[in-house]
Parts: sequence; C-alpha cells; structure tokens
Amino acid sequence: MYNFKNDYSVGSHPNILNKLIETNLEPQLGYGEDTYTLEAKEIIRKKVNNPKADVFLLTGGTQTNLIVISFLLRPHEAVISAKTGHISANETGAIEATGHKVVTVDTENGKLNPKHIQKALNEHLNKPHVVKPRMVYISNSTEIGSIYTKKELTELSSFCKSNNLFLYLDGARLGHALTSSENDLTLIDIAQLTDVFYIGATKNGALLGEAVIFNTPYLGLDFQLALKQKGALLAKGRLLAIQFIELFKDDLYFILADHANKMAMKLAYAIQGNGYSFLTKPVSNQIFPILPKELITKLSNKYLFYVWKEVDENLSAIRLIASWATDEKMVDELINDIKQI
Amino acid sequence: MYNFKNDYSVGSHPNILNKLIETNLEPQLGYGEDTYTLEAKEIIRKKVNNPKADVFLLTGGTQTNLIVISFLLRPHEAVISAKTGHISANETGAIEATGHKVVTVDTENGKLNPKHIQKALNEHLNKPHVVKPRMVYISNSTEIGSIYTKKELTELSSFCKSNNLFLYLDGARLGHALTSSENDLTLIDIAQLTDVFYIGATKNGALLGEAVIFNTPYLGLDFQLALKQKGALLAKGRLLAIQFIELFKDDLYFILADHANKMAMKLAYAIQGNGYSFLTKPVSNQIFPILPKELITKLSNKYLFYVWKEVDENLSAIRLIASWATDEKMVDELINDIKQI
Amino acid sequence: MYNFKNDYSVGSHPNILNKLIETNLEPQLGYGEDTYTLEAKEIIRKKVNNPKADVFLLTGGTQTNLIVISFLLRPHEAVISAKTGHISANETGAIEATGHKVVTVDTENGKLNPKHIQKALNEHLNKPHVVKPRMVYISNSTEIGSIYTKKELTELSSFCKSNNLFLYLDGARLGHALTSSENDLTLIDIAQLTDVFYIGATKNGALLGEAVIFNTPYLGLDFQLALKQKGALLAKGRLLAIQFIELFKDDLYFILADHANKMAMKLAYAIQGNGYSFLTKPVSNQIFPILPKELITKLSNKYLFYVWKEVDENLSAIRLIASWATDEKMVDELINDIKQI
Amino acid sequence: MYNFKNDYSVGSHPNILNKLIETNLEPQLGYGEDTYTLEAKEIIRKKVNNPKADVFLLTGGTQTNLIVISFLLRPHEAVISAKTGHISANETGAIEATGHKVVTVDTENGKLNPKHIQKALNEHLNKPHVVKPRMVYISNSTEIGSIYTKKELTELSSFCKSNNLFLYLDGARLGHALTSSENDLTLIDIAQLTDVFYIGATKNGALLGEAVIFNTPYLGLDFQLALKQKGALLAKGRLLAIQFIELFKDDLYFILADHANKMAMKLAYAIQGNGYSFLTKPVSNQIFPILPKELITKLSNKYLFYVWKEVDENLSAIRLIASWATDEKMVDELINDIKQI
Repeated sequence: MYNFKNDYSVGSHPNILNKLIETNLEPQLGYGEDTYTLEAKEIIRKKVNNPKADVFLLTGGTQTNLIVISFLLRPHEAVISAKTGHISANETGAIEATGHKVVTVDTENGKLNPKHIQKALNEHLNKPHVVKPRMVYISNSTEIGSIYTKKELTELSSFCKSNNLFLYLDGARLGHALTSSENDLTLIDIAQLTDVFYIGATKNGALLGEAVIFNTPYLGLDFQLALKQKGALLAKGRLLAIQFIELFKDDLYFILADHANKMAMKLAYAIQGNGYSFLTKPVSNQIFPILPKELITKLSNKYLFYVWKEVDENLSAIRLIASWATDEKMVDELINDIKQI
Repeated sequence: MYNFKNDYSVGSHPNILNKLIETNLEPQLGYGEDTYTLEAKEIIRKKVNNPKADVFLLTGGTQTNLIVISFLLRPHEAVISAKTGHISANETGAIEATGHKVVTVDTENGKLNPKHIQKALNEHLNKPHVVKPRMVYISNSTEIGSIYTKKELTELSSFCKSNNLFLYLDGARLGHALTSSENDLTLIDIAQLTDVFYIGATKNGALLGEAVIFNTPYLGLDFQLALKQKGALLAKGRLLAIQFIELFKDDLYFILADHANKMAMKLAYAIQGNGYSFLTKPVSNQIFPILPKELITKLSNKYLFYVWKEVDENLSAIRLIASWATDEKMVDELINDIKQI
Repeated sequence: MYNFKNDYSVGSHPNILNKLIETNLEPQLGYGEDTYTLEAKEIIRKKVNNPKADVFLLTGGTQTNLIVISFLLRPHEAVISAKTGHISANETGAIEATGHKVVTVDTENGKLNPKHIQKALNEHLNKPHVVKPRMVYISNSTEIGSIYTKKELTELSSFCKSNNLFLYLDGARLGHALTSSENDLTLIDIAQLTDVFYIGATKNGALLGEAVIFNTPYLGLDFQLALKQKGALLAKGRLLAIQFIELFKDDLYFILADHANKMAMKLAYAIQGNGYSFLTKPVSNQIFPILPKELITKLSNKYLFYVWKEVDENLSAIRLIASWATDEKMVDELINDIKQI
Repeated sequence: MYNFKNDYSVGSHPNILNKLIETNLEPQLGYGEDTYTLEAKEIIRKKVNNPKADVFLLTGGTQTNLIVISFLLRPHEAVISAKTGHISANETGAIEATGHKVVTVDTENGKLNPKHIQKALNEHLNKPHVVKPRMVYISNSTEIGSIYTKKELTELSSFCKSNNLFLYLDGARLGHALTSSENDLTLIDIAQLTDVFYIGATKNGALLGEAVIFNTPYLGLDFQLALKQKGALLAKGRLLAIQFIELFKDDLYFILADHANKMAMKLAYAIQGNGYSFLTKPVSNQIFPILPKELITKLSNKYLFYVWKEVDENLSAIRLIASWATDEKMVDELINDIKQI
C-alpha cells in the first residue's frame, strides 16, 4: 500500500540517525542540561532572531499544547480555538483535563480572524457565569491545510494585544506553512507576532520533537518545572536536541517541508486537471480533493488515506498528505491511476 | 570528568540505533499501531507469561507514574508511597497535579511493608475528612538502591489484596533489581504479585522508554485514551517499540543491568575494603558510601556524583551509580584513587 | 421594580425560617451527621420509593453538577449536554475545571433525545484521539422552560443503559417540571429512569439546597468524601436538612412550584392573547415571549427581566420567570401593561 | 450529653435568624449582587481599614482554602503548611484535588516561623524536580488552639515578602485568636501583614460563612469567577451577608468569641488546679488537657469531646472546645465532675 495517510509514517531523516550514532557514547548531563540541548536552543534563538527567547524541547504536539496552555492560563481562564483546531478535535480532552475550557468557533477554512475572536468574547460577557477567554490558539498550517498570511497574522496579533489575549501558534506543520508558495511569513515574523509558538519536527523529518519558543519576556520562566510535572522532560534531552540541530543545519527543515508541499501540489494540480474540486484550496502538504465515491473505493485498494467528509450522495472529500519522504514516483502513480479510473 | 552521577548519561545500546536505521524508511501506521509496537507488546506479554496482560509504551518514569496513578484512582482516593519514593520526592508534584494526594510513610531503606501501609491506613480513618488510600506505590530497585525479596513482595501483595489497594511497582531500575545477587524475584513473579508495574528502559540502555504492564484483567482498558490525553502517545510508536524489541532480544536487558550491578558492587567491595561503611547495603547499581568530606572534595575534581546527605561533621554519604555503559577501567581508577587518597 | 428576572430573588418560605428558629439551640453533630440530615434523607428516600437510594444535601446547582460529574467520570471520559445545558452555558467552566470535556449538542428546545446522543457518540469513534462519552446530562425543566415526558425520559434512559452511559438529571427546577400541566412524570419515575438526579430547592422556596439522589446501587459510595474534598460539606448540615424537611412536609415543595407555574402560565396566556408568540412553548415557570423591542424597552422601566435573544430587527425574546413568591397582583399588572402598551 | 466536641453544634446567634426573617421577602439581585452583600463587604473593608480590599463571602473553610489557594498558585507552585494545618490534615486532599502539593513542616505548637519556611525552601532547591513553594498557609488560632503574636506574624510577613511567598491566614477561629488574653493583634494588623486571609463565622455564631479579604491590590481580581467555577457562589448571597452584618454589629463577633474563650479558660484553670498539664498552653477556645484514661472514660459517659492523642500508657490528651453558646453551668458541672472523680 502506498501511504498518503499521514506525514509521520516513516522514521527520521538519515542525518538525525547518523548524528545519534556519532554522539551516542558521549557522556552528557541529564534532563536537558546536555550540551546538545543548549546548542539546539541557541540555534533556535538565532533563527527567530530573539536572543532572549525561552526555548524548550518536547516530544509531541498534544503534550506541547496541554503544557503551554495550562502553564499560561489561570483556573478561570479559557482558550479560544477554531472548532477544527487540534486541541478541540483531536486531543482526547487534553486541555480540559488540565482544567480549562476550549471555547470553539466555527470557521470556513480552519483559520481564525479578529471577527471570530470578537464573537467569542461577546459570548462571554455574562460574568461571573462564564469563563474568561485569555488565549487564542491557532495552527499554521491549519488542520485542513490552509495557511496564514502576514497580514492576517498581524491583524490577529494586534487584536489579541488590544484585548489582553495571549496568541499561541501550534506549528506542528509550520515548515509546510512557511514553504508554501502562498506564504509571506518568516520564522522571525511569527516570533514577533505571537507570545508563544512551537516548531513541529515530528511531522517534518524528526523521530519526535517540538520546540516551544516563548517570545514575550519572562513568559517562559519556570516552564522547565511544568515540563517535569507533566512528564515531558526526557532524561536524555540529547535525543530531542539532535533532531533540531540536524534539521536546522543548512535549512534541512525547510527543504524537507518544501518537498512535501511540492509533492502535494503536484497531486493537486493533476487532480484539478481532471476536473475535480477541493474542500479547501490546496496550498501546503495536506490536500482535500472531492472525488466520486466510486473512485475513492478503487483508490483505497492501493493507497492509504483518510476519507475526510461526505460531500453529497456521490462525492466525498479525502485527505492526501505528502511528507519529506514521499517518493515522486508514488505521486506520479497516483496521478496516473486517477486519470485512468 | 568520569561520570558516576546517573545511569542515563550516554545514548543507547548500539543495537537499538542499528535497528532504527535498518527500519527507518519502512512506512508504518502511527500512534502505536505500527507492527513494531505490536511485536514489542507481544514479546513483553510472553516475558511476563500473561497473554492477557495489557502493555503500553511510554517515554519516561514521571510520565508513566502520573498517568497510571491518575488513570486508576478516583478523585477522593490517594496513593501511599515511601517518603523517598520518586513520586513523593522527585516529580515536581506530578501526582498532585492530577488531583491526588501522595500519602508518605517514613521507611528505613526505601521499602514499604504491611506495617507501613497499616499505619497509613490507620491515619485515614476519620472519614470524610481524609482521603481514601487506594493504591500502594513501590519502586524496585528503590531510589536508594535496595531491592524487594520474593517474600517481602508476596506479603505486600497479599496485604494489598486484603485491603482493596492496588499495588503498583515502579520499575525504572527493574533490570538492576532482578539481576542483583540478592534477588530472588522474576518478571513473572512481579506480574503475578502486582496489579500494574513498569519495566524501565531509559536507565538501562534505551534512548527512552518505559513499558507499563497491567496484569489484572480489564484494568488497562481505555489506557490508550489516557496516554493521548496526557500527551504521552508518540506519533512514531516504532521509536519506543524498537528499544524494547532490541533490549529483550537475547536477554540484553538483563545483561546490561547485570554489568551495571557488577561495576557498582566492585566499587562497593573496594570501598568497604578501605574501611568505609554505607548508608544502605549495596545490592544493585546505586551505592551510597559514607566518606570523609575531604576525600569527597578530592574525588569531585575528577568524578561526577551526587553528595546525597551529610552524616556528621566529617562524613557525608555520596551516591555512585554505574550503568550498562560504565567502563571497568573507570571503576578501577576510582578504586585506585580512593585507596591512594 | 417588579421582579420577573429569576426565581431566587427573595429569601425562603417562612416555614423554613420558623423551623430554623425553633431548632436553633439544639446541639447536633456536625458535617451532616445531625438528626435533621438523617431525617431529610429518609424523607427523600421515601419520596423516591427507594430505601437504598443514597441521598446527599448540597448548597447549589453548579456545586452539585461539578461534584456528581467528576465523582462518576474517569479522566478520559466526558459528559454529553445540550448546548443550552447549564453545565455548558452558565457554570464558568466548572466541569472542565474538574478535568472533563462537556460534549455539546444542538437541540431545538433544550431537550436531548437518543438521536442527539447517537450523533455525539458517532463523532467520538476515532479512538484514542477523542474523549469517551460516558454520561448524559439533562435538565428538567430545561434552561428554556421545556419539560420531558415520561415517554421521552424512558427512551433516553433505555438508550443510555444500552450504551453504557450514566443518565444524570439536573433538577434545579424539578418542582416546576413535575407540576407543569403537561407533565406525566413522578419523582418515583425519575428515580427509576436515571442513575442520579437532584431535587433543587434554591429556586423553589429554600434559602439554599439541592438534594442529590443516587438511584443505582453503590454509585454513591464514598460521595461524602467528594463533598468534603470539593468544599461542599457544611459544618451545620441542619441548615440544609431543614429546608428539605419543611419543603416536603404536606407537599409544600409541589404547592410552591405549582404556584410559580400558574403565575407564569397566566402571563403566557395573556401575552398569547395579545397576539405574541413564544420562543418555546410555555409549560412551566419560565416563559420566553417574543415582543416588539419598543414594548420591551417600555416594560423594562417597570419590570426586571432578561432580554434573552434578538429574533429580528424589530423583535426580541425575553425571559419572564415566576416563583413561589410571585404575587398575582404583579402578574395582573404586567398583563395590563402589555395590553395597554 | 453535654457537648464540648466542637464549636458548630448549635445553629446561629438569634440576631441572625431575626434579621433573616425581617428581610426575608425583600426582592434582591442574585449571586452576590444584593444590597446586603454590598453592605457586608463595605463593613468588612472598614473593619480592616482598607477601602480597596477585595472581599468575598463563602460558605465554609475547606471551600475557602481550596479556592483561594488554587486561584493564586500556578500549576507548578505549592503551599507550605504546618503538618497540623487544616489543609494538610482535615480536608480530604482538597488542595491536591486542585493540582497543588501541600508541603508540610513539623512544628511544636501548630505555628510556623521563618525557620520552618526556610527549611522547606531549602528542601526545594533541586529544580526542576521539585515544586516551587509560593505560598505560606497559617491558621490563627491554630488547629491546636495556639495563637500568633504581633511580633511573630510580623516576622513571618516580612520573611514571606523577601522570599516572594504569598502569606495566607486561615481565620476559621480568628475571633477566638483576637480575643485571647494573650493576643496583641488586631484585624487591621492582620490585613496589613497578610496578602489574603479569611474571617470565619461558622465556628463563631453564624449558620455558615467565611469572609475572604484580599489585602494586596489586584490580587482578588476575577475571584468571583473562581467562586462560581468551584460551586461556591450562592444564588441568595443575602444569606451569607446577613451573617456578617449581624456579627459585626456592635462587635457581636468579638463578644461571642470572648465568651467561648472565657469558658474554655475557666475549664483550663480548673483542670490545671487539679494538677493536670496540657498538650499545648491553653489560650483560646480549644484546650487539650492531659488526663488519666480512666477519668476520660468516666467523663465520656456524660460529655462529648475528642480523644486527641495518647500520651503514654495511662494518659491521653483530649480536646475540649467551648463556643459562643456554651452554657457556664455546663462548664461548672464539668469542673465539678473532674474534681470529684
């Protein structure tokens, strides 16, 4: 079976494994005080152009989301998210399990704008009978493949500042967002426009690893205690650090994401060429073509993918994901199969 | 500097890295549904001789403790632990953060017996003004290097059953316990005598990894949801699974632990030979010699270790740990240095 | 100003205060072990015709909801509620603060039926990435004044049993539901059809007080510890007990609720007679007439009430509540004012 | 049976019930926006001489403790308490249930001093493996009847300020502390020396009620949301407010506490006169005489009290409590019985 189901089906980019082997027997301090963790943090501070940024390395997206959010919110405060947001739809109540309500908003394409936030705020005026929204959670790219423009993120950032809301960006697929052909944001922009965000590596070439960056001064103070308390502090921090050191060497992180996007977009153009439309405009490594159910059934004999949503009696949208490891031959074969069927 | 500070200062046993490289580009399902995870679970079920055991793979000890404990206790229930227990002393309030009180008991050597538990129960009779103890947490080997005998664990197990208490064993250093020259327990015994326990790999040759085994039928049902909710479910389960597959191949896990014990015991005999005593009897890979402070100062120029506890004006106990990777030459050099100084 | 804003604006029925004075200086045991608490529990067990029911007295609805729900759910489990349900809309994230997600469902009239629940279950199949629904929360009467019929509650109960879901009924206004002219349920029915429910007194003549009844055997075991832990156990349990003793003497509870309903329905008929419609059919002590905004503005000079919802440019729905203490003259005056304006 | 078991065995001072009756049918706003709540808060602000103090009314001590502590601490922060402190010994893990560890300290007489706190801080240096102490919890009078002097509280306050620790005082029996013949503190002192404290009324003449006062500016902001979220916000706030209005009228609160102290001290002098000693020096309404077990058995046929602690084979300490309602005749009878037996 050819895999278009997710972007975490293979191991890691070989550079990472090679480096793990190369450094394997060096004795190092534990719990993130090793020289590799220090080096990875320094590299990331440079990449975001903020020497005072507080950087922490974690193992996964849900873990990162729940620790960041519970660390910054007080008990009566809540986080606003798109209904399609990962914290709302896919994390088994991880945020609620830390005591906080996720206030959800319907969106057209998975992206939040100031109007959405204002609406959520308006619905929480009946103090003290409602929670106090205090953070906005967004993903870039979103769970349905869309990305934020610099203008959009700037407006959101400014709205959040005016309304005393933390802006937190989930970057599980940040590489794919920043290498999209439609993107005009940089890592530095994101660091300036958000209070805290994370750079996801699990879905872009690492075995595991997400790097949280607190941009706002002092915001990350004591976060190491939160990591330990929530079971996220690895004894061997080097394992996470080496993922990021290798991925940020010679921009490998962006090269890998770019490949994933190109493969997905090649698929998207071909599918469009066959006259099919999409649930949301394809711009990154996740695309959602709307196909005849019959075609979907046939494809599913050879390819792995999610059937995302029924559109009508005859049509459904499916999700196709490409990754840094997607072989172009596999893409061509799928294109060919769609054309022929 | 030579490292006797911990047993997680180097990477992993080379077999693990080699297997990671060998399998790296195989596409696999995510979130623990990959074939390696299935294989690792099956291996462990066989090792504990319980085909119905529920097995789960996690990344670290604190994470494992907090998820197991919060999964099994109801809000008004508490866990009993030795004061030196990891959940009491070293986990940044991880258990309390899930809502549960850790009821602590003073012990002589880090081990709990039915008298300790009975005392804790007696102190919680004033219902409803006190929590309800519902679980006993023990470590084997303990945080101060001691181990449980079969007789001791059997008595504890039987006391817990009679008193409707879950018995949970933290096996962060289970390999070292089971290969101690004083040990008479097996993995199978432990599976039969506890409700749930974990086999620690991070401190015995893995990059990361702890395997939780629910021995009591149905107890582990839905635990996968708890893993996801607490941020412990890796997208690439293969990373954890391969640690255990390799460690349980040809009993590597026990061979590595045995080496660590031998190195520590060699140190212990030599130190004893120089007329020094110990805080607790050396039996596994952690030893706690009581040395003159002057000697400690000199040693600390060349060796890394923890100063554990002041004993009197002139003496302190230090903790020396050996691991699977400890070089015998380093041990000999330390023995020599102690003799000479 | 005349008050149609809520049903908790005055103190308590005089019988309660008289009884408090009469018994004031009797020494009693604390924390719910007083003879009045025992008596109140016994009365309630008889009223629900279940000698084995576990009964507990609490001070308010939010407190009751959060303790019952967190007591019965495990960490990865969630409760299903109508979006208009009190736990979803009006409790400042109280349920989430105990660690549980509230899964909300859109309804037409605030009532849940098996189809709603099935839909929510269908949306939670993607294990382990979603919470496990394990309880259904309903209110009777609902937050928008509607009530359940015996047929509806029976269907819901049977659906919940088949799907391993606890059925929990919030009876903040249970008196008003059971004395509605459209009601065909009894307290005994409710005890048989739900796992746990509460009889609300705060909104029906008491100073404070809600009585939780666990109908399913053993379900309420240890609940007293949960009460203490969550700060709900009053030192002077007699205060709560006397509310219920007096309210259940000679069916005062139902007489008071019936008065409230009658006053609200008198208003409803008169408003309908003036040609206005309602957001939901008036059947209990909360009614939601849709009135011209101009009329609403005029009425608001003399009467207190909530403007519930804008219907269109010219019309809004308001909420008018009558209580056990509502004076019929005040109702007549409002009827008159609506007619004249 | 004569009751020396607790200070909450009878109802309330009659003035409170009279005022409840007098005001019973006045319509008022709900959830603490009624005029009585506003009046009570204003009275308390004047009593503590801080017009900017934030005052809130709650129903009980455990409720107050858990909401104040969870409101002020971040997830990785902990509270320091004497081992005998109410939050450690008598609240069913209420603080832990909100996610926070209670760091306990052994004391001689239930009181904390800077040395105790420094010791606790010293035991929490191993970051990030330990919680961060951020609050000190004390009771005045303590759970064993002792009281703080102005000098002691000033030193503690200053130590807390220097160490960035909130100082929180549990005043469940504050009236008894402030009317002790050994006391030199005032309400105003306490407001100046603590960040937050509460004035307990349940144990001094009210049906229920504790008044929390945030002295430090802004500290109490949004606390009303915490009250609602934790189920502590009564619909009929007037019930709580009237307790405090009446108790602070003509210093009734202090007159009642003074009576309780006088009754206890009369007992204490008499017991001392018979040659018996005390567990802690009697200074307020709780005294702990050490009596022969034989005498205790005989007394327990006629009087209710707690046997606190076995002292040796023949002796035990018992707790005798007097309250505002204790009849002097009952005290005299007990004195007589002790003398005769």
